[in-house]
Amino acid sequence: MPSSDVSSDGSELAALLGDGGKGSPKVIPPPNFGMVDWGIYRSSYPTAENLPFLKKLRLRSIVYLCPEPYLNHEFVAENKIKLFQFGIEGKCEPAVEIPEGVIRDALRVVLDVENYPLLIHCNRGKHRTGVLVGCYRKVHKWSLASILDEYDRYAGAKARLRDKQFVEAFDASRMQRKGQIWKAISWWLRAFCDGQTLQELKSLDSREREIERAHGHNCRNSC
Amino acid sequence: MPSSDVSSDGSELAALLGDGGKGSPKVIPPPNFGMVDWGIYRSSYPTAENLPFLKKLRLRSIVYLCPEPYLNHEFVAENKIKLFQFGIEGKCEPAVEIPEGVIRDALRVVLDVENYPLLIHCNRGKHRTGVLVGCYRKVHKWSLASILDEYDRYAGAKARLRDKQFVEAFDASRMQRKGQIWKAISWWLRAFCDGQTLQELKSLDSREREIERAHGHNCRNSC
Repeated sequence: MPSSDVSSDGSELAALLGDGGKGSPKVIPPPNFGMVDWGIYRSSYPTAENLPFLKKLRLRSIVYLCPEPYLNHEFVAENKIKLFQFGIEGKCEPAVEIPEGVIRDALRVVLDVENYPLLIHCNRGKHRTGVLVGCYRKVHKWSLASILDEYDRYAGAKARLRDKQFVEAFDASRMQRKGQIWKAISWWLRAFCDGQTLQELKSLDSREREIERAHGHNCRNSC
Repeated sequence: MPSSDVSSDGSELAALLGDGGKGSPKVIPPPNFGMVDWGIYRSSYPTAENLPFLKKLRLRSIVYLCPEPYLNHEFVAENKIKLFQFGIEGKCEPAVEIPEGVIRDALRVVLDVENYPLLIHCNRGKHRTGVLVGCYRKVHKWSLASILDEYDRYAGAKARLRDKQFVEAFDASRMQRKGQIWKAISWWLRAFCDGQTLQELKSLDSREREIERAHGHNCRNSC
């Protein structure tokens, strides 16, 4: 392919993860950042230098898995992000039991499309986050070996056997994703249409509602 | 949240990564599988047991980074997947230079929205795939430390300094994403509307074209 075909048509897409032309500042995702699935991200605890990156993800929700008060409350309020806090002790010594009911409640939030785009994080994005993502994979019937392969990738040398045992024992048979595809498309449009003025977004909103009125019923029935 | 609110409304979404109700077979992604970005996946070389999982991703393209003939050619043909092969030697001893021109050509394919959903893979999803994903992150202006953090997560103990040096030296200043948001939405609709009959898909196609006719021009201008 000749280099002349490098076009700028995709700038609305590129904006999502930080394209900004020459000379724009470096993008700094939180350590252990990754995409779990459509609309679901995971990471360690974001610090001030990560917030410009998170802003570009246009998050609708954060699932925070530590008991301590949240440090990024200003960022969350400014960006109208719903904060779901599930306080789970992270200490390994002495070992604290992973509270199954709390993980189950957090998983229900993660399975709800209307909370997307959503970021899951604890302190280091290894253990509590790894357990929740592992349970999410169980809902989607991943083989245990595949789930633990992913857990290990993020936990590295700090992998904990009790986390893996918890995921193995977790019964995901009554959990499933909920929400409507058109709601997801609505945030998807917003995520990719970065740099909109408020007025333009309002106009986009009304176009989305038109689309939903015209096509939502049929699509939901046929999918 | 009471458990009764666990609904089945989201089955079209859940289908993407393998929800299939009770008793459905285990889902087995390839080792080192991960989501790079919207519509971009990475993994090791998929084997026969991984193909049912890949089918659910409704891939439009595969970027294959080894010089050897492709083993999954039947799967690719059956599912009308475009195969982009970029033959890069993977051996470390004796060290083979990473061909910058080839990486650049592969990156152009990865940056083209019309190829999504797309899977990048080599043999183990560590080195050649890690280099290409690293260059992709450079296009999006990730800090080098963040890029190498991600490279290490997938390469583990097999991380190679020369791969990291290549990514550091790679000049991504003239590369950017290309394609149109409505094309991406079109495949996104398909990906989530799993289990359609051909007739239903045709009807969906025409609805998409209606949406594009009605709204595409305005959105492309305002995004």
